[in-house]
Amino acid sequence: MKKLVIIGGDAAGMSAAGRAKRTLPDMEVTVLEKSEDVSYSACGMPYNIADPERDINDLVVRKAEVFREKQGINLLTGFRVDVIDPDTRIVSGVTLRGDAFSFPYDNLMIATGATAIRPDIPGADLPGVMPLKSLNDGRKIKAYIAEKRVRKVVILGMGYIGLEMCEALRDRDIEVEMIKPRPELLPWMERKLAGIVQEEVEANQVRLYPGRHVQQIIKKDGRMAVVCPEETHPADMVLLAMGVRPNSREAGAAGLELGPGGSIAVDKTLRTSVSSIFAAGDCSDAFHVVTGEKTWIPLALRANRSGWAAADNICGKATILEGVVGTAVFKVFDLEVAKTGLTVDEAREHGFDPVSVTIETRSRAHSHPGSSTIYAHLVGDKKTGRLLGAQLVGKEGAAHRINAVAVALHGQMSVKAFSDTDLSYAPPFGPTWDPLLVAANQLLKKR
Amino acid sequence: MKKLVIIGGDAAGMSAAGRAKRTLPDMEVTVLEKSEDVSYSACGMPYNIADPERDINDLVVRKAEVFREKQGINLLTGFRVDVIDPDTRIVSGVTLRGDAFSFPYDNLMIATGATAIRPDIPGADLPGVMPLKSLNDGRKIKAYIAEKRVRKVVILGMGYIGLEMCEALRDRDIEVEMIKPRPELLPWMERKLAGIVQEEVEANQVRLYPGRHVQQIIKKDGRMAVVCPEETHPADMVLLAMGVRPNSREAGAAGLELGPGGSIAVDKTLRTSVSSIFAAGDCSDAFHVVTGEKTWIPLALRANRSGWAAADNICGKATILEGVVGTAVFKVFDLEVAKTGLTVDEAREHGFDPVSVTIETRSRAHSHPGSSTIYAHLVGDKKTGRLLGAQLVGKEGAAHRINAVAVALHGQMSVKAFSDTDLSYAPPFGPTWDPLLVAANQLLKKR
Repeated sequence: MKKLVIIGGDAAGMSAAGRAKRTLPDMEVTVLEKSEDVSYSACGMPYNIADPERDINDLVVRKAEVFREKQGINLLTGFRVDVIDPDTRIVSGVTLRGDAFSFPYDNLMIATGATAIRPDIPGADLPGVMPLKSLNDGRKIKAYIAEKRVRKVVILGMGYIGLEMCEALRDRDIEVEMIKPRPELLPWMERKLAGIVQEEVEANQVRLYPGRHVQQIIKKDGRMAVVCPEETHPADMVLLAMGVRPNSREAGAAGLELGPGGSIAVDKTLRTSVSSIFAAGDCSDAFHVVTGEKTWIPLALRANRSGWAAADNICGKATILEGVVGTAVFKVFDLEVAKTGLTVDEAREHGFDPVSVTIETRSRAHSHPGSSTIYAHLVGDKKTGRLLGAQLVGKEGAAHRINAVAVALHGQMSVKAFSDTDLSYAPPFGPTWDPLLVAANQLLKKR
Repeated sequence: MKKLVIIGGDAAGMSAAGRAKRTLPDMEVTVLEKSEDVSYSACGMPYNIADPERDINDLVVRKAEVFREKQGINLLTGFRVDVIDPDTRIVSGVTLRGDAFSFPYDNLMIATGATAIRPDIPGADLPGVMPLKSLNDGRKIKAYIAEKRVRKVVILGMGYIGLEMCEALRDRDIEVEMIKPRPELLPWMERKLAGIVQEEVEANQVRLYPGRHVQQIIKKDGRMAVVCPEETHPADMVLLAMGVRPNSREAGAAGLELGPGGSIAVDKTLRTSVSSIFAAGDCSDAFHVVTGEKTWIPLALRANRSGWAAADNICGKATILEGVVGTAVFKVFDLEVAKTGLTVDEAREHGFDPVSVTIETRSRAHSHPGSSTIYAHLVGDKKTGRLLGAQLVGKEGAAHRINAVAVALHGQMSVKAFSDTDLSYAPPFGPTWDPLLVAANQLLKKR
């Protein structure tokens, strides 16, 4: 019987393991997970941390036993793979308890995910300086806040994990300062929309310090302090939210081709440059549907989906997984922030001739109570008339609305065709012309 | 200078008038509107009626003077056109004050909208038996409720106007009973989803009487009563919500070709069967993008959009307006109800071989607080794998979510392609796999 070994027991790995077992129940499926946790809602961690009453283990979707006993998966936790040998088809490593192990495979699937980036500065390894990536990170943070009675956190980074966490901490009435090296909050956002997000964050007493290069983190009078040339920021805890990088070191060492950002290069069947080895999830790259080029956008849906598709191909069910369009949403305080497709800068970098509009309209119909402002930014290609991307910010109606554009991007739709789509209208949910249609109509005039 | 005459000064008519004037400022644009109101939010009426403190005239978006003085449109209210003569290119009629009028045109645009259907039974014309279609209908209803201290309303019809109004009336603590001849609430809905809507309506103390053929409405002891064979329903007011029919009598009498439901047949340039005459809005038909056949779905967005497109073609800017997919949403109490595309029955009638799924999932991520159940129904074609339609019901996330499917229908997307789309995910807004993707994945298994 064929042996499938999967490195990594998170979204992509467990999706693949379950799928493979359902498709070929006789296949021997072994999952080697370096931590003790499998199958949990990583994206839910900020919301769990926001509520001191909730158990962090609420985020576990399925326990290891279920995979082992109900699904017949040989799931081994505490198994860290160090070496992949494509020639002998053997992976090997050392367990958390110090025991060496090795497993032969017919097919290998790498689903090692991504790791939080740590700053290369003195003090980055002090206790109380913590990233939020794994469930264990979440556990540590939650326990630390409680035990140390944390009253102030400095967050390094202002991406969406940082923003979700600043909300979570403010919900607990913890003081928050955010620091980053680049001069702008959310540099990929249209400036007007980024300004709305910034106002919302600052209105919730979060102090932003962009353009700061942190020199070191020091211990000082029983607290910590984040030292920048401009000023020093005392803190009870420092949260690292500087982004992630793909866990591809072992794959790279094994000679597998790497893609953008050092992610593992895969084709549309999720196969790597070595035919017996597949990769899926945050460690692997994807095709961008709009540019047709490789990209690395680590997100949960893609992780699940690519895990399934890899398993199907491994099990002999030929499956092509088309690419991503880069849809992402997050909530920060009372705002919904959403994007899909390319920004103006990205469009230009990929050879398009971008035109864009930014409009401001209402989230509900004329005179309907409870309405708020919604901002829509749309990007199109002047040359071909093609729709390239969108961004939305508003107190309501941004998160799901963006999907209309996401689907249009998958369909390679023109701005004109999108502007003619029959989108929903009822007074409690929007104006007669959906904000996206208003933006599309205006964008058409720029051709 | 060319003369454009527009019959009807509501959404389509005023959109066309304004657009034509902006495009060709020298064109003589005359709008003949039979009522005194132009440019108001008809769909907002139930929400306005719900609140006794709000002035019904809040719903006016733009007053007649603005069109006349700022936009230079010859807008004549109280002008009811009775005869269209395509040979002499003259329209004629009588004003509300009894004066005969006639206007010659180079191009005519018919935007006469639709009229509420009245039952052909004794008592249907009693005072206190009222439809809700025009702003004046809204005024009368709101005044009647106040003056007569209405405590109980019987609604004839259970479509979305009826449902929006039952909510509005319950908001004012008015007792509501709803009666209709057909045996089922929302017969176009998948039965499970319709059941959820029914539960919501009944949980708000609205009593539903489907399968009743009303025999007459009588005056009785200073109140009214709706008489059915099964029982008699006392009422202070009777609301007619039995649907609408297109106002196409004059067009039909002039020999213009009619389409589905007696609507005025137009091509993709909004031209009728007579080349100098265009029609737009609720009086005219449209192509259904999924079936490719003519349909009549009177909705506000199409009215505005077709008004613009007709004006563009009249002004010499050749414009093709693609069809509709039949997207519609409404709110009823705490539920969002949404549909787009074809139902299983419609799909079968149009020669497809429909398969469908109905799934039940959560509106937010695993373990995220505030989550509620969301129901998704998806229809595909077994033969071609094409996506054909969707319905959604839930306390949140249905109204905008449906647009992802609407765009997919415009793009003639397959269920497989839709199931691979990169839809948004963040815990406050949905599960990792959007409910629509869960449904699409299940629908794929039915091929």
